[in-house]
Amino acid sequence: MPAHPLDTLSIEETHRARDLVASLHPDTVLSFREIYLEEPSKEELIQFLTAEHAGKNAAHPHRTALVQYDVIGSDRIPQYHESVIDLDEEKRISHVVLDESQHAGLTLSEFDTLVDVCKASQMFKDICAEIELPEGFEVIVEPWPYGGPFPDEENRRYFQGLCFARDTRSGNADSNFYAYPLPFIPVMDAHKREIIRVDRLATGGKGDSLDAKTHSKKIIDHCKASEYVPELLKNGPRKNLKPLNVLQPEGPSFSVDGSLIEWQNWRFRVGFNPREGAVIHDVHFAGRSVIYRLSISEMTVPYADPRGPFPRKQAFDFGDGGAGNCANNLSLGCDCLGVIKYFDAVTIGPDGAAKVAPNVVCLHEQDNGIGWKHTNWRTGRAVVTRNRELVVQFIITLANYEYIFAYKFDQAGGITVETRATGIVSVVNIDPGKTSAYGNVVSPGALAQNHQHVFCIRIDPAVDGYKNTVLTEESHRAPVNKETNPYGNFYEVRQAVLERSQHLDAAPQHNRIIKIVNKSRTNPISGKPVGYKFSPAPTQLLLADPESIQSKRALFAQHHVWVTKHLDGEFYAGGRYTLQSRNEIGGVADAIKRNEKIDDEDVVVWNVFGLTHNPRVEDWPVMPVEIHQLQIKPTDFFTENPAIDVPSTKNEASLLTNGATNGTTNGTSCCK
Amino acid sequence: MPAHPLDTLSIEETHRARDLVASLHPDTVLSFREIYLEEPSKEELIQFLTAEHAGKNAAHPHRTALVQYDVIGSDRIPQYHESVIDLDEEKRISHVVLDESQHAGLTLSEFDTLVDVCKASQMFKDICAEIELPEGFEVIVEPWPYGGPFPDEENRRYFQGLCFARDTRSGNADSNFYAYPLPFIPVMDAHKREIIRVDRLATGGKGDSLDAKTHSKKIIDHCKASEYVPELLKNGPRKNLKPLNVLQPEGPSFSVDGSLIEWQNWRFRVGFNPREGAVIHDVHFAGRSVIYRLSISEMTVPYADPRGPFPRKQAFDFGDGGAGNCANNLSLGCDCLGVIKYFDAVTIGPDGAAKVAPNVVCLHEQDNGIGWKHTNWRTGRAVVTRNRELVVQFIITLANYEYIFAYKFDQAGGITVETRATGIVSVVNIDPGKTSAYGNVVSPGALAQNHQHVFCIRIDPAVDGYKNTVLTEESHRAPVNKETNPYGNFYEVRQAVLERSQHLDAAPQHNRIIKIVNKSRTNPISGKPVGYKFSPAPTQLLLADPESIQSKRALFAQHHVWVTKHLDGEFYAGGRYTLQSRNEIGGVADAIKRNEKIDDEDVVVWNVFGLTHNPRVEDWPVMPVEIHQLQIKPTDFFTENPAIDVPSTKNEASLLTNGATNGTTNGTSCCK
Repeated sequence: MPAHPLDTLSIEETHRARDLVASLHPDTVLSFREIYLEEPSKEELIQFLTAEHAGKNAAHPHRTALVQYDVIGSDRIPQYHESVIDLDEEKRISHVVLDESQHAGLTLSEFDTLVDVCKASQMFKDICAEIELPEGFEVIVEPWPYGGPFPDEENRRYFQGLCFARDTRSGNADSNFYAYPLPFIPVMDAHKREIIRVDRLATGGKGDSLDAKTHSKKIIDHCKASEYVPELLKNGPRKNLKPLNVLQPEGPSFSVDGSLIEWQNWRFRVGFNPREGAVIHDVHFAGRSVIYRLSISEMTVPYADPRGPFPRKQAFDFGDGGAGNCANNLSLGCDCLGVIKYFDAVTIGPDGAAKVAPNVVCLHEQDNGIGWKHTNWRTGRAVVTRNRELVVQFIITLANYEYIFAYKFDQAGGITVETRATGIVSVVNIDPGKTSAYGNVVSPGALAQNHQHVFCIRIDPAVDGYKNTVLTEESHRAPVNKETNPYGNFYEVRQAVLERSQHLDAAPQHNRIIKIVNKSRTNPISGKPVGYKFSPAPTQLLLADPESIQSKRALFAQHHVWVTKHLDGEFYAGGRYTLQSRNEIGGVADAIKRNEKIDDEDVVVWNVFGLTHNPRVEDWPVMPVEIHQLQIKPTDFFTENPAIDVPSTKNEASLLTNGATNGTTNGTSCCK
Repeated sequence: MPAHPLDTLSIEETHRARDLVASLHPDTVLSFREIYLEEPSKEELIQFLTAEHAGKNAAHPHRTALVQYDVIGSDRIPQYHESVIDLDEEKRISHVVLDESQHAGLTLSEFDTLVDVCKASQMFKDICAEIELPEGFEVIVEPWPYGGPFPDEENRRYFQGLCFARDTRSGNADSNFYAYPLPFIPVMDAHKREIIRVDRLATGGKGDSLDAKTHSKKIIDHCKASEYVPELLKNGPRKNLKPLNVLQPEGPSFSVDGSLIEWQNWRFRVGFNPREGAVIHDVHFAGRSVIYRLSISEMTVPYADPRGPFPRKQAFDFGDGGAGNCANNLSLGCDCLGVIKYFDAVTIGPDGAAKVAPNVVCLHEQDNGIGWKHTNWRTGRAVVTRNRELVVQFIITLANYEYIFAYKFDQAGGITVETRATGIVSVVNIDPGKTSAYGNVVSPGALAQNHQHVFCIRIDPAVDGYKNTVLTEESHRAPVNKETNPYGNFYEVRQAVLERSQHLDAAPQHNRIIKIVNKSRTNPISGKPVGYKFSPAPTQLLLADPESIQSKRALFAQHHVWVTKHLDGEFYAGGRYTLQSRNEIGGVADAIKRNEKIDDEDVVVWNVFGLTHNPRVEDWPVMPVEIHQLQIKPTDFFTENPAIDVPSTKNEASLLTNGATNGTTNGTSCCK
C-alpha cells in the first residue's frame, strides 16, 4: 500500500530525503533542522481526493519532502537552505538559499547551545558574581528567541537567556526556579557561539525610571518558594477529590486507519508537522466536503514592559521554533480521559537521524452536556440527547508557557478550534515592596509582565466544493416606518459579498458573522446557498504602537479576519520566517496586497483572536486555563439538524446520591 | 432544627401561609398563583449569616411567605393581591393590591383556559373551517403571553394562541405539530374567558405586502413532517454511538445538607423559586465570602417580523410566567451524567394546595479538560491536573423553546453562569416557494422568524464583605514616547471607579473588564484590593427601535452592565410585572435613576448578554444548543492559584485504543 498523500513522512522516507540532500552537498558539513512532508500542490491533491472519494483509482502525487538545513561554511558560519525532494523520482525539485535578512526557525539544539555558551562565558560569570544568591541556589538560563532587533542593531542571529535561580536544597530537579528571577539577560551571537552582551534589567517600580537598577546584591532574598510539583507542596495535594472515571465499555465510536479518522458522519485526516503541530485535512461530513485544510497558523506574544530589552520580548510561538517541535508527549489518563488513540510524529536531530516522537496528538471522545432537548409540555415527554464530541488535541510547551490546542468535532456538523493558555507566566525581578505599571506582582519579588497572546487560525474551506464565496452577514436596527416597520420591531439582516482579498474586523454591535458559501449549491429547504459560518470574536487586537517593531512584525495581529485567495504553501499568517523578523514578510498582509478576486474562487479565511493578559496573583505559580473557542458551524448546509438522530437513551451508569453521606444509591426508576 | 432562613418553604409552611391568607379574605373566592419564600431583608440575613459563619448562635429571622393570589369579585373579575405572611407570628406584614395598569405573571392554568376557551369559541371554529386540513390532522393551540399591547389597545388581560396542525395518524401524541403552522392567532380576554378576536396572519414572502394573506385553503399541503421523537424518525436513531459512562466509584466529592452544598473549598446554598428557578446564596470560598446572591434575573425574546400581530411576539421568560414554574423534572442519565443529587421544589395549584415538584434542580460534578499544566522541558516532568467542576443545573420549557441554565463552580475560584438555548424555533406559515426578509424557511411552509434572546444575570457580590466597589479596567495603546515608551510596546492599564449607579457597555477593543473589589482588603502579594472580575460579552443588544413597545418594555436589554445600590426585593431587571407591560417599571433603568453613591457600598451588578438568532435550517426540528458563558473569576482575591493543590494523579480507568478495530487495550505504562 503506498502512503496516502497526506500521511506524514515515515522514518525511511525521512532518511531517504536526508541522504539525497547530503549527496547534493558533497564534501560539506550539513546540520539538519527539519525534514517533513511537503504537501502536494492543491491542484494535484484535489485531483487525487476527488477520485478517492468517488471510489476511483487515481495517480498518487509524488511523495515530496521539505528538507531544512544549514550548510556549514569553512568559516563555520552556517548558511540556511531549503530543498524539496521528490522521493519517487529521487531528485531535488526546488532549492532555496535564504539571504541573511531572514532567519531559519530555531531548533532546540540552539537553545542547548545558549546554555552551554553561557556556562563557558567569562562575561556571564562576572555578572553572576555581582549578585549574592543564598546557599544552595544555582543560576538557570532559560533560552528565548531574541524578538525583533532594535533599529540600530545588526541583524545577526541572536538568542537571549532569561535568568533565574533554582533552590537545589530539596534535591528535586523540578523545584520552581521561576519564583527567583535574576536581573540580567545574556545575549548570544549564535553563529559565533559567544555571549556578546549581558543586558542588565531594571528592578524598579512605579515612579522609578525605565532603567532604575535599584536592586541590592541580595537579589532574591525577598522572593519566596512557589512550588507546583505535588511532592514539594507544603501540605501536599488535597485529599478530598474523589475519582471521576470515563468508561467506554464498548470502545470508542471512532475508527482510525493510518491518518484517516471516521466518526459520526465525519471523515477527515490528521497530519502533523514541526511548524503547525496537528493539521486537519480533507474534512467531509456525510460524504460532502466542508474544509480542505484547517490549521493553527501563528501566534504572537508581545510583552508590554517598555524597559531595557523587554520590547524585544515577543515570541512567535509557531514561526520561531515550531509548535510541532514543542509538542508534549501526552499521557494516558492525564491529558485526556476515556479511551484514547495516540498519534506519533517523526522528528530529526542535527544529523538528520529520524526518530519517533511518541503520543504528540491524542484522539478521544468526550461528553459536553446536553446536545438538544425538547419537552412537550402537553404530554410531559422529554427527548434529550447528549452532546458527544470528538477531540484531536495537542499541547505545546514554550519555556514557561503551555498551550493546549484542540479541534473538536460535534454531531451537529460543527467544528470548534479551542485554545487553552496555561503554564507559568513570565516574571522579572522587582524590588521589595514596589508595584509596577508594567505588570502585577504575583509572588514577592516576581513581577509578571503584561502581555498579549494573539492567535491566527487558518481555514481553507471546501464547502461542497473548492470554489467558495465569503460574505458578512449583519443584523441592523431599522427605524419605525409606516409601511415596512410600523411597530419598530423589525431588524434588517444585511449581507455583503467580499469581492477582493481583504482584511476586516469583528463587529459584535451588528452581530457580524462570516459566512463561507457555495453559490452553486442551494439548500433545497431555505433556497439559500449552502454554507458554514463563524462569528469572529471581537477580542482586543495588537496594542503596540503601529510604528513599533512589535507591530510591524505582526501585521496579522491587527485585524480579526483576513480573506485571501489560495496560494500553494501560503500557510503562515505572520510570514514564513518570523524568528528575529523586523517586518512581516509573506504573511497575510502581503497576501491581500495581491488584491485578487475572491468571489466564487478558491478562498482561504484566517481568523485572529487574542487574550490581553494582565496577570492576576491567581495565575501563579501555574495559571488556570484561559479558554478561547472558534466555532465553525453549518448554516443552511444541511436540510435539518444533523444530530436529530442521536439516540436519547438513558445512561444506565449514572447514579443517584442523597449527598448527605457521599454515599450513592442505584437509581433505576428516575427516567421517564 | 428550625429551617435555615434560605431554605425554601415546606409544604406545611406553604399551607400555613395559604390558610392565613384565606382567613383574611373570609367569604371570598381566592385563586392562588404562587406561594414561596419571601427572603429575609439583607440586613437581617447578613446578621444571621455572619453569626453562622462565626460558629455563633444567632436569632433566626422570621420565616416569611409571599402569597400571590386573585380575589375573585362578584363580577367574576379577579383582582390581584400580594400578601407577605410572617409564619412565626402568623400575621400579615404587607399587603399590596395591584392596580389594573400592571399584570400578575401568568400561571399554567391560564394557558389551559386559553385552550379550553378556543375549543368552545364559535369565532375560532369558524376560522378553522376556512382552511382544509388533510385527513387525520387536528388543530393545536399553543398558548403564549400577549406581549406588549399596541398603543391603541385597551390594557385588558389577554392571551394569544399560536396555532398548528398535528398529524394524528401515527397515534403518537408527540408527533411534531410545529411543522404545520396555521395562519391565525386567537386572542382571549382572560377575565371574560372569551375569544375576542382572531388575528389572521400574512403568509407571503419577499415582495409581498405586510398583510399579504396569499395562502390557499390547503394551508399545510406544502408542509412536511419533521419528527424528533426517536420512534418517529424515518430511520430511527443512529446505531454507531457507543456508550460513554461517567463513574465515580467512591461517590461524589460534594456534600449536601438541606440547602447547603460544600465542595472543594466552596460553600453555598441553593434556593429555588417560581420566578427565578435556582438561586445561589451566600457563596464562600475557603471561609471567605464571594457572592451574597447570584441569580438569572430576566430574559426577553423579541421577534423581528413586522407583520400583523408579531410585534407583540415578545416573551419575558422569567417575568411573564416564571422560570421556576417552567422547570423540567430532570432525569437521571439524561440531563447529566455521573453521580447526581436532585433537589425538589414545592408548587401550588389554584386552590393553594402544595405538592412537590420533583428533581427541578440537579447537582453533579463533571470533568472539563485540563485545569492547568506545566512541563519542565529540562527534566521532561509534566504536572497536569484535570479541571473538575460542580454544576447546579435547571432546565425550563417555554412552549416551543428550552433553556438550560447552569451555575458552574471550579477549583480555581471561578464561577461560570452558563445558558444553553435549545428546543424548537418558533415558525409561521409561508406560501410555497417563497422566502422572507423576516426569517428563514427551515422546513417547507415553515418560516422561522428572526429574533433575539437577551438575558440578564444578577450578581449581588460580597467580595470579602458586603461593601464593595465596582471599577472598569481597560488596556489602551500608548504612543511611542522617548521617556516612557521608547519602542512602542507599552500599553497602559487604566482603571476607573464607578462612583454612582449607572449603566455601561462592553468595550472589547479596550479589553474592558468589570472588577468588583473590596477597598478595605489588600492582597498581600500584589498590594491591590482583593476582587472578582468578569469580562462583559459585547453581544448585540436589543435591536428594536428605541420608540417601539418592544424596546420600552425591555430597557434592561439595552446595556451590557448595570450597577445599582442594593435594595431589598429589587431582583428583576425588567421590572416586577413584565406580563403585557408597555414600559419597564421598577427594573434596572429605574434603579439607576436613584443616582446613588456606589463606591464602597452594598452594590449589585447586572450583566446583560444575548443571542441574535436568525435561524438556520440546522436549527430544525430541534436546535443544537447555543451556549453562552459568563465567567466570574477571582482577581488578586487569593495569594496563589487556588487549584495548585489539585492532585495530578493519573486516571487509571482510561484506556488505550489502536483505533483500527474499535477494540481497547489496557494501558498501564503510558504515564510518566
